[in-house]
Amino acid sequence: MVVPRDWAFELLLFAQRNPKPCPVLAVLDAGEVSGPVLGDGDVRTDLPLYSLYREGEAAGTRTDVLDVWQDDFVTFALGCSFTFEAALQEAGIPVAHIDQGVNVPMYRTSLPCEPAGRLSGPLVVSMRPIPADRVADAVRITSRYPAVHGAPVHVGAPGELGIRDLSAPDYGDAVQIPAGHLPVFWACGVTPQAAVLESGVPVAIGHAPGHMLVTDVPNWRYQVP
Amino acid sequence: MVVPRDWAFELLLFAQRNPKPCPVLAVLDAGEVSGPVLGDGDVRTDLPLYSLYREGEAAGTRTDVLDVWQDDFVTFALGCSFTFEAALQEAGIPVAHIDQGVNVPMYRTSLPCEPAGRLSGPLVVSMRPIPADRVADAVRITSRYPAVHGAPVHVGAPGELGIRDLSAPDYGDAVQIPAGHLPVFWACGVTPQAAVLESGVPVAIGHAPGHMLVTDVPNWRYQVP
Repeated sequence: MVVPRDWAFELLLFAQRNPKPCPVLAVLDAGEVSGPVLGDGDVRTDLPLYSLYREGEAAGTRTDVLDVWQDDFVTFALGCSFTFEAALQEAGIPVAHIDQGVNVPMYRTSLPCEPAGRLSGPLVVSMRPIPADRVADAVRITSRYPAVHGAPVHVGAPGELGIRDLSAPDYGDAVQIPAGHLPVFWACGVTPQAAVLESGVPVAIGHAPGHMLVTDVPNWRYQVP
Repeated sequence: MVVPRDWAFELLLFAQRNPKPCPVLAVLDAGEVSGPVLGDGDVRTDLPLYSLYREGEAAGTRTDVLDVWQDDFVTFALGCSFTFEAALQEAGIPVAHIDQGVNVPMYRTSLPCEPAGRLSGPLVVSMRPIPADRVADAVRITSRYPAVHGAPVHVGAPGELGIRDLSAPDYGDAVQIPAGHLPVFWACGVTPQAAVLESGVPVAIGHAPGHMLVTDVPNWRYQVP
């Protein structure tokens, strides 16, 4: 997530107040395009797809942001729940969107995040259907990865999150939910993009949902021993 | 820790980059004197003793800061390792400074923190002597309290931290180290005050070392299940 320096304190504070959706792995200095987590990469070119926002409106997607880069842009690297999916699979827990060859489904919930200054917005969640007898294991395994969203925020009962139709996600793709599987919801790093939209930030850049920055940092580095 | 709004982003970023010494429990909005963690208290009066800093110099201690308060002051509530001492004692691990009726000894180390903008400074640690056969237990118990500094950063070998004389702490009081006990070092919340001193922040307020804000939040709220 990239915002102008004038908004950087509020975004960092928003992350501090909402650590489940916004686990901060690194913050670059204003204007920097590489650094911790990114290594010698370039944040302007290394993501597969970017979402641009202007004045609180979506302004399209693009495969690099070289032409809109500003010297006062501050880059935040946030953890992604894709990181713990290998651990789920190793424990024999199916990850539906991988098995079905689609993007993970994500939903804007009716739960407001804790605001920070001018920034406010709803919690966004990702959903994975988990067999009822593996829900406890999925909770325990993902709780060991707090830097990539950690344990679920909600198990079953999507209506309580304001989600009326699981087959119509706000971002990503719908997945089939097999019988005997519960929809399990994890806090999602698209949350600050929803806040940027709702709060009228003059200009901001995020990853297009599901089109993540892939780094050289191995998964185990984000596992609590 | 209280700094002017102009320094708040850098302090929050310093905390993000140095989470062991600077675990942020809450950040109040500029000018606010109560809020999360503080409840209906008043940060200007509720600490037993304050340290004032001006232009990177210590400017004395005081029992309230009503007369120096500014509308642009941003308050950071940081976790304190005193919180996990009850858990150590419940497990039968002696806490020397409590048993000896003195303040915990704290040391400026030779290890630099990760800088953030204009803010830089050394890691400060607190020290508790732990019986050799309980060091592993002390590590495990305190690791469950990451929000109040968590597991130790260093066990034994004080010279490696640049500490030449354990009997001459930089803050707090010296403690007797019984035979068969190892000096065990935890990251300390005085660290951002050392940074404020070193970085020439125009005005800042901290707790006087060892004179903590005592809240109504129970210890278990900061324990990882």
